[in-house]
Order: sequence, then structure tokens, then C-alpha cells
Amino acid sequence: MNIEKNIKTLIVNKPLKLDCGKIIKDFPIAYETYGELNSKKDNAILVFHALTGDQFVTGINPLTKKEGWWSNVVGPDKAIDTNKYFVICSNVLGGCMGSYGPSHKDPDSKTIYGKDFPVITINDIVNAQYNLLEFFGIEQLFSITGGSMGGMQALQFISNFPDKSKTVVPIATTSSHSAQNIAFNELGRQAITADSNWKDGNYTSNNTNPGKGLAVARMAAHITYLSKKGLQEKFGRKLQEREDLKFGFDADFQIESYLRYQGSVFVDRFDANSYLYITRAMDYFDLAKQFKGNLSKAFKNTKARFFIISFTSDWLYPTQENKDIVIALNSIGADVGFVEIQSDKGHDSFLLDVPDFLSALKNFLDKSYIEN
Amino acid sequence: MNIEKNIKTLIVNKPLKLDCGKIIKDFPIAYETYGELNSKKDNAILVFHALTGDQFVTGINPLTKKEGWWSNVVGPDKAIDTNKYFVICSNVLGGCMGSYGPSHKDPDSKTIYGKDFPVITINDIVNAQYNLLEFFGIEQLFSITGGSMGGMQALQFISNFPDKSKTVVPIATTSSHSAQNIAFNELGRQAITADSNWKDGNYTSNNTNPGKGLAVARMAAHITYLSKKGLQEKFGRKLQEREDLKFGFDADFQIESYLRYQGSVFVDRFDANSYLYITRAMDYFDLAKQFKGNLSKAFKNTKARFFIISFTSDWLYPTQENKDIVIALNSIGADVGFVEIQSDKGHDSFLLDVPDFLSALKNFLDKSYIEN
Repeated sequence: MNIEKNIKTLIVNKPLKLDCGKIIKDFPIAYETYGELNSKKDNAILVFHALTGDQFVTGINPLTKKEGWWSNVVGPDKAIDTNKYFVICSNVLGGCMGSYGPSHKDPDSKTIYGKDFPVITINDIVNAQYNLLEFFGIEQLFSITGGSMGGMQALQFISNFPDKSKTVVPIATTSSHSAQNIAFNELGRQAITADSNWKDGNYTSNNTNPGKGLAVARMAAHITYLSKKGLQEKFGRKLQEREDLKFGFDADFQIESYLRYQGSVFVDRFDANSYLYITRAMDYFDLAKQFKGNLSKAFKNTKARFFIISFTSDWLYPTQENKDIVIALNSIGADVGFVEIQSDKGHDSFLLDVPDFLSALKNFLDKSYIEN
Repeated sequence: MNIEKNIKTLIVNKPLKLDCGKIIKDFPIAYETYGELNSKKDNAILVFHALTGDQFVTGINPLTKKEGWWSNVVGPDKAIDTNKYFVICSNVLGGCMGSYGPSHKDPDSKTIYGKDFPVITINDIVNAQYNLLEFFGIEQLFSITGGSMGGMQALQFISNFPDKSKTVVPIATTSSHSAQNIAFNELGRQAITADSNWKDGNYTSNNTNPGKGLAVARMAAHITYLSKKGLQEKFGRKLQEREDLKFGFDADFQIESYLRYQGSVFVDRFDANSYLYITRAMDYFDLAKQFKGNLSKAFKNTKARFFIISFTSDWLYPTQENKDIVIALNSIGADVGFVEIQSDKGHDSFLLDVPDFLSALKNFLDKSYIEN
């Protein structure tokens, strides 16, 4: 696909020192905007995407030709109302939708980075995105929000730039990747690097693609996005276009067919090395550790109003991990609201049409905006 | 490894009609025994192994040189006391420790079966094992037991042969594989078949081995055997022999190193095609479906005493799925006991030193034996 012609890109000239020590400069950050920035420039919401998301939040993604990943949340009159708010979203550093990542060329060697791209962190990701505020001349955002890895970015952003957002809405997230989270990501990475087409990360110059490994990684992750109960209700033991078991290894069950489909369509839109780098950034995320184990200190300089949202059936970032953030905020007297939304749809709830979630998000934003 | 010289094998001459319709005969069932069969032949316990287990229940496995998979449960004075009981265990049909499986040669074509081996079911597995009773001249077993897929076999066995065991102890199991169970197994199968060394199942004749794919399958399964809490307590974010993150893709975290190790040692002892076939048998397992959706009917002809054991942190076969079996038994007035054991060790609890589990199992068996 021809990425460039559909992508708005900010070239960041200011050097950025990454957590690994390497300094990058003149790097691209691909972004998209929705709605209009008002004259006071006080209606901007910075949305952070999750592991496999991108800057195309809503409407038809010009590259995949499918609906944006948050189309049911962001748009005119939706929970994040683009009649009212100016929404900005950028592809994360390390990504594969235009922002600086492992599929780019090293300016020195003129070869594609592959696994020579520096390991990046959530901190690096938000520091790179910060340049968008300057670009748009925004002194203070109205809100920052995102689910899953997007929530991690929201937490890191407000910690790094405490006065740069009025409100913060981390959704279905955690302040620190758990052992089980790391285990599932490592499983995905092992699946990719086990693919003989991965070629030590140099698949592009070898004209190969570790698609089978990447598909397996996606299937593993996808299972974690859904609840056991939700899977049972949706699929159970339903058979895939057959009357009975076939005594073979084709997809007898709908859940098998569904997973295979999820794996195969993912490979068309995502880069294997980006998957390695972004999962690594998630695994490295531990906000409390940045403050010697005291999560509260991450937020001690901000006056932002927080609203934390979790989902009952999310076993990837369960309610308790979201509550830990609420506790840390309460312990320093921060302005914090919290809601646990009832849903059988698992972690994916934040991407789906869950009415209580959508109304909670909308009400928080719209009420906070009136009081602005 | 030279399997044959360490393996006791029963060649089953009687033809066995498999669920897929194929008839097999003169096939080997590899087995092991512990303790002594008494003169009344009423002290035998048939133990069924789980997905990756084998007939070497206790003591040193002569092939892997490691402790048997249930060494802490089976042995002199242990929960299953070999001073008292005669323990029999056989490698499942489809397995790779001597029983008839995909690494065997097709007697007609003289080539290794690979994926031409017939797809087998839990029903086929127990029907094959039944021949051991005749072989040992045992009219009725004292007990049948097993965890996980071993529990499925116990349920299927007593349904097929209602008067062939006095007692039945299914542990950490289910009467029907859920959508999430199938999903994780399908993930493992996809990882194996994605490995270019799998060669459409003919890796042996191609002198290759899909070890990387099999290792990924094992890692995926292994995560499901442990609880989120247990993983967090054991590993958390502990680093692997380093002071700080290395900003690379080596195993920074202990959990990564642990998973990689689990994958690599598994490959040394297990066959990739066996993994495909046995997971398929598990996914096909749906005991209620065999009785038109009425699980109770599976047990209507047995007078056996049941004791069902589940573990609080088992999310693979959670307590509720074990309770569903208890409910089905109660609804026909069967003799059934049930205990949910408190443990943070997840599904793997049935293999580990969990004192409440060991004493519950021991007490049930020993009391039932006295009343025998």
C-alpha cells in the first residue's frame, strides 16, 4: 500500500533523547485530526491508540478502507463529540502507519532498521507526541484519553507534562505490566521470531514476510481481549458451516475460523517488527518504578481531573489494576472519578458499543467542558 | 532416544472402531504400573494423564530422566499410596511415548502416519485403554482418576464402562471444552503448522522438526496453566540476572526466560503431531452432546462413588465447570462429593504440592477403600 500519500506527517526537528540513551532527530510523527480547533484552542483532545491501533481513529481508514478503530466513540454527537472537540491522534513511535519505526531507513546506513531500531518506551512515545501540541499551538489540552496501551500513554503524558491537560481519562489500563501481560506479549514475540521468514528482522530486504508468525501472535493477543464468558456466549461449540465434526484439522468450530480470520486480516495491515517494538514498550511500562515505587508521585504536580474507567470482564487489565491508579490519585487528594462498567465483552469493551461506557465517557467530558 | 527398550507395551489384537469410523487393530498401548495387584484384584487404580503427560506417573521417567509428572501424588504413603494400591497408567492413543500415534508407521503404506493418522477422541482413548483391564484380569477397578484431560478420560470411562470402577475422581476438568479452551488449543496448532519445518506433518521423513512452533504452542498452553496472581507472586517484574532493563529483545524479565525454558525443554520430549492430535481430541470432547445435551444421562448406569476436585484459581477449567458435573450427578442421585481447593497455583495445582488437595484425595481414596 502507498502509505505516504494518505498520511499527514509532522517532522520533529528537535532532538529527542530516548530512554535507551540514543538521540533521534528529524523523525516523522504521523497524525490525524477530527473536528475543529476553536479560537481559544481549549477544545483539543489527544487520543492515544492501543497496541495495534493507528492515527485513523474514526471514519474510513484510507489505508485499510475499514472503519477507524474508535468510530463508535469519536464523531459528531458521539461520546467524544467532534462537533465540540478537536481530536488529535498520532501513530506511536515504533509503529507502522507513518511514524518513525523499524520499517524506516536508518539515515546513516541507508538500510531499513529492522531490529536495529532502538527499543522505545511509553515515555519515549509520549515525549515524541508532545511535539504535536507545539505544532498546533495548543497551550493546554482539554483532555487526553485512550484504552489499554492508550491509557498507559495518558498516565505517562500527564506525569511528564502535568499542566498540559485539564482532564485525563485512562480506560481499561494499568500503571505497570503484570507478569501475565509480559508472558502473553513474549509469546507473541516468540511466534514472530520463530517464523523462518522473519530473517532476523530483515524480512523486507529479503522480500519475505513473517506473516504466519505475526498471525499466531495476533491470535494469542486476541484471546486475551475477550472474556471466557463472552467467547462462550458468542461461539460456544458452534460448528463452522458443517452439520457435524469432520475429524480433521480444518476449522470445525466457529471460534477456530474466527481466530484464523483475525490472524490473517491483521497481517495485511501490520508490521511484524513494529509488533515486537510496541509490545516491548508495553512490557517496559512501570510508572511507579519511575518514582521509586510510589505511583502517587507520578501525579503529584498535576491539577488535572481524572476519570478512570474499567470493565468487569477485562482479565488483561482487570478492575483492580485500574483501581490501583485511583488509589494512588486519591492518596494525594487528586480530583478523580472512577467507574467499573458491567460488560461481558472483556478487554475489547473499550472498542465496542457498550452503552454505559459511552455515556459515562460522554458525560464526564461534556460536564468537565462546561465547567472549563 | 530409544523409546522401545524402556517401554512396556500391550499389543491390542481386538479391532477398535474409532469415532471417525476407521477400524484399528494390532496397535500398541504403552503402559506402566506401580505397586502390586492384590490377590482379589480389587486394589487397582487407573490413572489417566493430561495433554502432555505419559505413563511414567512417578519415580524417574526412564526416557526424560526427570521425576514423573505425578511423583508428589503417587508413591509409597503418598495420596495415591502404592503400598496399598496397584496403579496403572497408559500413554494415550495419539501420544508419543509408545502408544499408537502419528509417529508410527501405517502398516499398509509402511510410511510414518504424520497427519494421515486418524483423528481420535477421548472416547477412542478410553476404549483403547480398557484393554488393560482384560490384560491384568481386573474385573473392577477400585478407582479411576486424573486431572485436566485425565479427568475427561475418567468421566468418559465411567460413562462407557459404568460397572468397571468403584470410585471416580475427576480433578480440575470439564465435561465439555469451552470456546476459550478451543481457542488456546487452536492457537497451539496454528503455531505448529506455521513452522516451515512442520512440512505438512512429514517432518520426520524430511529430517526436520517443527521445534520452534511446538515451543510457542507450549508457551501458550503454559500461561493457561498458571493463575495471574500466581505468576505475579512468583515472577512479577523481576529481572533475569541483570540490574536493569537492557533495551533489547533478550529475556529481560524472569517470566520471559521461564517461558522460553518451558518451550525448549518441551520440544525435547514431545512430538508436534501428537500435540495436534491430542489437543483435537480435547476440543472434540463434549460428554453431554453424546447424550443429546443431558450430561446426567452419561452417568445413569453407574453406581460408582464420585469425588470431584477443583481449584479456586484454575481459569482453564474453573470451579463452575467442575460443579456442572456435580450438578449432573446430583440430579440423578449419584454418590458424589465435591471440594474446591484454595490455591493460587492455577490449573497446575493438581500437579503441585498443594497440601489440602493431597489430603482430600488421600482421605477419599483410603476411606472408600476401607468401606470397599
